[in-house]
Amino acid sequence: MELQDKESLPQRLVALSEAGEGSACAALLEQLDASETVHTVTRLSDEHRTRLLELLDPESAANLLSLLPEHQVVGAIGDLGPTTAAKIIEELPSDERADLVGLLDHREALSILAELAEPEASDIRRLVAYPPDSAGGLMITEYVQYPAEATVGDVIDDLGRNAEKYSHFNIQYAYVTDEAGLLVGVLRMRNLLLTARHRRIGEIMSRDPLAVRDATALDDLVGFFDEHRFFGAPVVDALGRLVGVVERSAVDAAVATHREKDFLRSQGIVGGDELRSMPLLLRSRRRLSWLSVNILLNILAAGVIALHQDTLEAVIALAVFLPIISDMSGCSGNQAVAVSMRELTLGVIRPVEVRRALLGEVFLGLLNGLVLGLLIGLVAFTWRQNVYLSLVVGGALTLNTVVAVLIGGSVPLVLKRLNFDPALASGPILTTITDMCGFFLVLTFAAAMLSRLA
Amino acid sequence: MELQDKESLPQRLVALSEAGEGSACAALLEQLDASETVHTVTRLSDEHRTRLLELLDPESAANLLSLLPEHQVVGAIGDLGPTTAAKIIEELPSDERADLVGLLDHREALSILAELAEPEASDIRRLVAYPPDSAGGLMITEYVQYPAEATVGDVIDDLGRNAEKYSHFNIQYAYVTDEAGLLVGVLRMRNLLLTARHRRIGEIMSRDPLAVRDATALDDLVGFFDEHRFFGAPVVDALGRLVGVVERSAVDAAVATHREKDFLRSQGIVGGDELRSMPLLLRSRRRLSWLSVNILLNILAAGVIALHQDTLEAVIALAVFLPIISDMSGCSGNQAVAVSMRELTLGVIRPVEVRRALLGEVFLGLLNGLVLGLLIGLVAFTWRQNVYLSLVVGGALTLNTVVAVLIGGSVPLVLKRLNFDPALASGPILTTITDMCGFFLVLTFAAAMLSRLA
Repeated sequence: MELQDKESLPQRLVALSEAGEGSACAALLEQLDASETVHTVTRLSDEHRTRLLELLDPESAANLLSLLPEHQVVGAIGDLGPTTAAKIIEELPSDERADLVGLLDHREALSILAELAEPEASDIRRLVAYPPDSAGGLMITEYVQYPAEATVGDVIDDLGRNAEKYSHFNIQYAYVTDEAGLLVGVLRMRNLLLTARHRRIGEIMSRDPLAVRDATALDDLVGFFDEHRFFGAPVVDALGRLVGVVERSAVDAAVATHREKDFLRSQGIVGGDELRSMPLLLRSRRRLSWLSVNILLNILAAGVIALHQDTLEAVIALAVFLPIISDMSGCSGNQAVAVSMRELTLGVIRPVEVRRALLGEVFLGLLNGLVLGLLIGLVAFTWRQNVYLSLVVGGALTLNTVVAVLIGGSVPLVLKRLNFDPALASGPILTTITDMCGFFLVLTFAAAMLSRLA
Repeated sequence: MELQDKESLPQRLVALSEAGEGSACAALLEQLDASETVHTVTRLSDEHRTRLLELLDPESAANLLSLLPEHQVVGAIGDLGPTTAAKIIEELPSDERADLVGLLDHREALSILAELAEPEASDIRRLVAYPPDSAGGLMITEYVQYPAEATVGDVIDDLGRNAEKYSHFNIQYAYVTDEAGLLVGVLRMRNLLLTARHRRIGEIMSRDPLAVRDATALDDLVGFFDEHRFFGAPVVDALGRLVGVVERSAVDAAVATHREKDFLRSQGIVGGDELRSMPLLLRSRRRLSWLSVNILLNILAAGVIALHQDTLEAVIALAVFLPIISDMSGCSGNQAVAVSMRELTLGVIRPVEVRRALLGEVFLGLLNGLVLGLLIGLVAFTWRQNVYLSLVVGGALTLNTVVAVLIGGSVPLVLKRLNFDPALASGPILTTITDMCGFFLVLTFAAAMLSRLA
C-alpha cells in the first residue's frame, strides 16, 4: 500500500467499524502484515478497538488479540462482555487462553468461564492455577493420547476422523497413557507409517519417556531443552499423570519476554510495562513509584556533601568533579552488575559464590580505576595546574571504581539469594552506595590536603 | 549428589580426563543436569576443557558444546585441531554448525571445512554467507523434500529407510519441490497416514504454501510467526528455490539472545559479552572502551559547572543539589528510553514518529517534574529555610525532568532511524545533554536570584 493510504488506516478502520462492516474490516486487516496491524489497531481508541473486535468473526478476533499488547487485550476483553469474549477466547490456543483469563479480574474471569463450553472451561480452570512461567503455565493441552492397547489402525482412524480438530496441533508425538492417566510411553508419529495397522502401539512406543513436572520452573525448562534436542516434552503432575505438553518454542518465547521485562525494570519501568496510549495518571504513578525511591536515596547520598561544605567552600573546583565521580562510578558498577546478571543467567555462577564475583572484579576495578583516575587527574591538572587537586580527584575515582565494581558484581548475587529482583534493585543500591562513598573519598582527601589545594 | 561431591566436581573431571578416562568423564557428565554441567565445565582451565572434549565421543562432545558460552566454544574448537573439531561439528544441528564456523577465524574455518564430508561442508559454506539473524542464518537444513510425482508409498519407504538419519528432524511437514528445486507445495505428514500408498503427493499437498525469503530479517520473522500459527516455515531464495526451514523456536531463541545483548550493551558491556573467566586485559579493554567515552562526555557536562564557579562559590549549598538533579534527570530520561525501546519492539511506534513520542512524554514529564521539584524544594527549605533556594532547585528539576523525558523518548527513535544502536547510545547521549541542561538551569536561576540566596 502507498504511504498515503497507511496514514489513514486507523481512520478507515474506524469508519468501516462504525458502519458495522465487519467483513470489510476483516478484509482490510487481512491485507496488512503483523507489524502494520499492530501499528494500526493499537492506536484506535479503546471504544473503537472493542467495536472492531465485536464485528470480526471470533477466529479473526482471536488472531488480532494474539498480536496486541497485554493491557489492550485485557481492556478489550473486559469491554466485550462475557458471551462475545468467550467465543473469541475459544479460538485461542490453550496456553494463551489460560494466560489471558489469569490476567482478568475475578468477576470477569468467572463470568467468561460460565459462558465457555466443557472441557475448555475446566481446562482453563486447571491451567490458571499454575504459575505462568512454570511448565504447567507454559504447556498446551492440544496433544493426542491413546491407551497402550490401541492399535496402529485405531490411532490412524482417530487422526483421520478428527483432522479438523487436530489441525492446529503440533503432532510429532502421540502420548501413551494407562487407565489411571499415567504417562507410560511416547509414540513417534512417523513410526505409525512404518507399522502394520493391527499392531498395538504399546509394542512400538518408547517406554519410560522423559517428562517434566508441571511445577518445573522456567530456568530448569531452559536447561532441559538445552540438554535434550526435543521439540516438546510431556508434562506430568505429582502423581505422574500426563497433563500437557510444553514446547521448546513456548520456553524460548517466555525467556524473551523475561529478558525484556528485566530490561524495563532495570531502567525504572516497574509495576507492569507501559505504552504511551495508557492513561497519563497511571503512567505517572508507576514511574513516580520508582523515582520517589531514587530521589530519597539521592538525597541521602548528597547528605555526604552537605556534611563537608566547609571543604567544598575552600576548594570550589571540587564541585565540578563530584558529579563526574558519581556518574563514572555508576557506569563502572553497572558493567559489573550486567556481567553478574549474565553469569547468573548462564549458570556459570551461583548466588552463593559472592567471593568468586568479588575476586573476578577487584583487579579489573583497580586497573580501570587507575586509567580513569589518571585521565581525570590530567584534566584537573590541565585546568588548575595543581597536582594535589589531581591526586585528590584521581585517587578518589580510582578507589571508588574498585568499590563500584565490587558492589556491582556482588549485589545481584546477594539480591537473588535473598529472593529480591536483581534487575529492579541492583541499580539504586549500587548508585547510592557508590555516590556516598565517592563524595566521601573526594571530600576527606581534600580536607586532608586543604592547605595545598586552596 | 551431595553438596560435598558437587564442590569437587571440576577436580574429579580434571582427574578423570588427565587419566584419559573418556567414558568415565562421559558417565560423570551424564549424571549432571544442564545447569550443573555448565557450572562445572565452564570453570575448567582452557587446557582441561579441550582435553575433556578430545576424550569424549563426538556426540557427547557436541552436546556439551551446545551448553557452553560462545567464547569458550570458539576457544576449544581452535585448540582441538581440525580433525577432531570436524567430527564434533558434524554432530551439531545444521544451524549451530554454521553459527560456530562463522565465529571462527578464517584459517581455522577453512581447515575444518576441508575435514568435513559432503554435503555438510557445502551446506555450511552456504549457510555462513547469511547474516546470523536472517531467515537464512536461523534456518536448518534438516528437512525432507520430495518431487510432486512421488507416491505416498515412496515417501513412506524413504522415511523408513532413513529413520536413523531423520531421527533428529522435526518432521511435521514434507516439502514438495519441482525439478528446478522450486517450492511447489507442503505436505502434512499426517495426511500420509490417511491416503492410499499409490496416490501421488502432488495431489494431496497444499499448493502455494507460505514461505519466507532467506533474507528476511528477525523482526519480520517475529511478525510472520505472530501472524501464523506455524511451527516452522519453508525458506526460499530469490528464485523461489527451497533452501531450508526456519522454526518458530529458533526465532524465539534469537529474540531472547537479542534482548539479552541489548541489556548488556545498555549497561556498558560492548564488543561481545563478558565472563569473568576471560583474560583480565581483554575485559578491561572492552569495559574501558565504553567508560572512556563516558568520562569525556561527563567532563563536557561538568564544564557547565566550571563556567559558573562564581555563582557556586556564593551559594555553596547548590553543590549538594547538582548531583541529585543530574541523577534524577537521568532516571526520568531512562524510563522514557525504555518505553520507546519497548514501543519500537512491539511495533506500536515507528522511528519516524518522533512527534508522537514527544507528545506522549511532555505532559508526563511536567507532572512528574512538578512532583519531584516540589519534593526537592521541600528538602531544600527544611535544610536552609530559604524559599528562593527551593525555587531554584525545584524549578530546575521540574524543567529538567521535562527535558529528560523528551530526550529519552525521542533519542531511541532518532538513533534507530539513523541506523545506530539505540540500546548502546541512548544512555550516554541522554545523560550528557540532561546533565548540561540541569547544571545550566540550576546555576543560571541561582545567578538571577543571587542576592536572595547568599
